[in-house]
Amino acid sequence: MARFMDVHDGFVGATREQIIEAHDADLAIEGDEGVHFEKAWLDAEAGKVFCLSTAPSKEAVMRIHERSGHPTAEVYEIGVEV
Amino acid sequence: MARFMDVHDGFVGATREQIIEAHDADLAIEGDEGVHFEKAWLDAEAGKVFCLSTAPSKEAVMRIHERSGHPTAEVYEIGVEV
Repeated sequence: MARFMDVHDGFVGATREQIIEAHDADLAIEGDEGVHFEKAWLDAEAGKVFCLSTAPSKEAVMRIHERSGHPTAEVYEIGVEV
Repeated sequence: MARFMDVHDGFVGATREQIIEAHDADLAIEGDEGVHFEKAWLDAEAGKVFCLSTAPSKEAVMRIHERSGHPTAEVYEIGVEV
């Protein structure tokens, strides 16, 4: 298992409820790929969302996000955390 | 106080020691601006670093990072965290 940070664009004006809903949609199916999304952070002005996860691969993170309706190609494998 | 996520490029091939050193350089002066850097995550292949902080403003985060020698213009104010 490795650690990943992924980045989404296009969430301009998103609300807390919408982020909870999107995060819950990930959590509902993440087990299918052995992924766990730990945290999500939204900047609604910039429309950016950052998600921190543990997963077996970058592709697993991407597949869950795609199935949940918020695909992203920006997934970074975290080698160092301080 | 608000929460911020900032993003750095150009850390391709950076080591754990270099990230600890960069993070310590921030911690050494962050109090001057009322900033606190909580976490930093590195993807050395992509050269990306993500920093999570609490701070009075985006500009305060930018000033500390600039003085520490790793400026970035990409600082996002986090309105929602789940």
